Amino acid sequence: MTDHSENNVSDERLTRAGHSRRDILKFGSIATLGAVLGGVALPGRAAPVLAQAGSEGELAPNDPLDILIVNYDGGTLLDFAGPSEIFHRLPNTNVRYASLNGGSVTLEFGVVYGKTERLADIEKTDVILVPGGSNLAAPMRPEYQAQIRRLADSAKHVTSVCNGSLVLAATGVLKGKRSACHWAFVNKLSEYGAIPVPDRFVEDDNGRFMSGGGVTAGIDFALRVAAKLRGQQAAEFTQLAIEYDPAPPFHSGHPRDARPEVIAMVDKELPGASRGLARIPGVR
Amino acid sequence: MTDHSENNVSDERLTRAGHSRRDILKFGSIATLGAVLGGVALPGRAAPVLAQAGSEGELAPNDPLDILIVNYDGGTLLDFAGPSEIFHRLPNTNVRYASLNGGSVTLEFGVVYGKTERLADIEKTDVILVPGGSNLAAPMRPEYQAQIRRLADSAKHVTSVCNGSLVLAATGVLKGKRSACHWAFVNKLSEYGAIPVPDRFVEDDNGRFMSGGGVTAGIDFALRVAAKLRGQQAAEFTQLAIEYDPAPPFHSGHPRDARPEVIAMVDKELPGASRGLARIPGVR
Repeated sequence: MTDHSENNVSDERLTRAGHSRRDILKFGSIATLGAVLGGVALPGRAAPVLAQAGSEGELAPNDPLDILIVNYDGGTLLDFAGPSEIFHRLPNTNVRYASLNGGSVTLEFGVVYGKTERLADIEKTDVILVPGGSNLAAPMRPEYQAQIRRLADSAKHVTSVCNGSLVLAATGVLKGKRSACHWAFVNKLSEYGAIPVPDRFVEDDNGRFMSGGGVTAGIDFALRVAAKLRGQQAAEFTQLAIEYDPAPPFHSGHPRDARPEVIAMVDKELPGASRGLARIPGVR
Repeated sequence: MTDHSENNVSDERLTRAGHSRRDILKFGSIATLGAVLGGVALPGRAAPVLAQAGSEGELAPNDPLDILIVNYDGGTLLDFAGPSEIFHRLPNTNVRYASLNGGSVTLEFGVVYGKTERLADIEKTDVILVPGGSNLAAPMRPEYQAQIRRLADSAKHVTSVCNGSLVLAATGVLKGKRSACHWAFVNKLSEYGAIPVPDRFVEDDNGRFMSGGGVTAGIDFALRVAAKLRGQQAAEFTQLAIEYDPAPPFHSGHPRDARPEVIAMVDKELPGASRGLARIPGVR
């Protein structure tokens, strides 16, 4: 089992280092890139090394990799758009999208997505990813649950983002496993026998289970999954390609930081949110 | 015209403050939320105040707001999925998607998106947003350009993310205006008479023009647009709802930070990238 406190410390160190570097380099212009390419040393250039996969020895960074994203009516676009953008850019990696009946799905806010395949038509996948949504009634139905459980049982890596963790947990596959989830729903994981962890990225069983927190956490989640399965350099390439150098204008990304009146706005819309127990259609 | 250096300094201050706060609060658990809601003072709780709109007095935070996202074959999902997720959550705000012929579009990597409306069927919009893509041949066609120019001319706010700025600039509407763009393409803005600015968020003419850098910059861009048009509290609410509390695992989000060998990988795929002059289909 992953040591949670160690993970936390390591995240903190990496993030802090990243920002110090940005502080130093912030005012450099794109014109300095020639110098960088020419090998001029920049302060703190060495990148941190994250633990790589390989203890299971199941997937080398160049083996073909299949990643399946489970879609459903009521899902949230950004939960999987972040991971999708990262996974598509990895070497020798095939990203597929599937829903119960195939075709298009109608996401939150009426956004129409896909062409998706039929879940039943997919024999197996290396990685299954269940994103979250504003309405989980569809993926909580027995037919969806059976397909997700079948594919999770044979997958090398079982993953979720946001309250997609609740969908996964409801299949029973997360029993006794540590999992992340959107902060407003994280404590509901207990109701399905999973262990709620209020972090942005969580892994258990040496990476067989990996999960991200709410919505945008899917980006950080996917970069870690990418590093584990395709190597750190491939993950760094992807981060650079999608210019993931975040600079949020406000301190409002998590209840630890947000102003009380802003947390109260979410609580009004999602009663129970600040206890991690927000109600959502499809979840008892 | 916006003072660029001042913007930069202000960004830096906000980001740094945000991270200090996270450092302090990182180890608090979701269980502390009760205390937060009860009004217990936390260190550094006051949020920064960004400049609000209103100098033009065109849109008050409660006036109905129409935002149009321009879609096209070859576009990049995450360029607009970030903004879309934010804009849909704003009060009294209607988000529409449109392409030249309506119906669905086939994005980068074969991702199918929409139900979109026909551009010609939209009389006008308050905000037009042009996202970027891996192939700009479609939106550079005269019919697309004419529709984008028509809608931009009557829009209160003309905006873009990533190399969507090139599409917008090609219409002529950004002549003499400062604009952001994906780092690999930013200097191509000059070819269309716009002024390249290698920042994550750029505004000109007091917010009539607003733009974001590459792909994920759309999230930071949209939070700033949200604050300007709907008020800071609405923007903070959205940031909390999508748990935008980023923690990238690597220092690789911008050429200022990335390792030379990683920058070289992008240069190999996109020749000219490190000079901000990557070639892309559809752009001369």
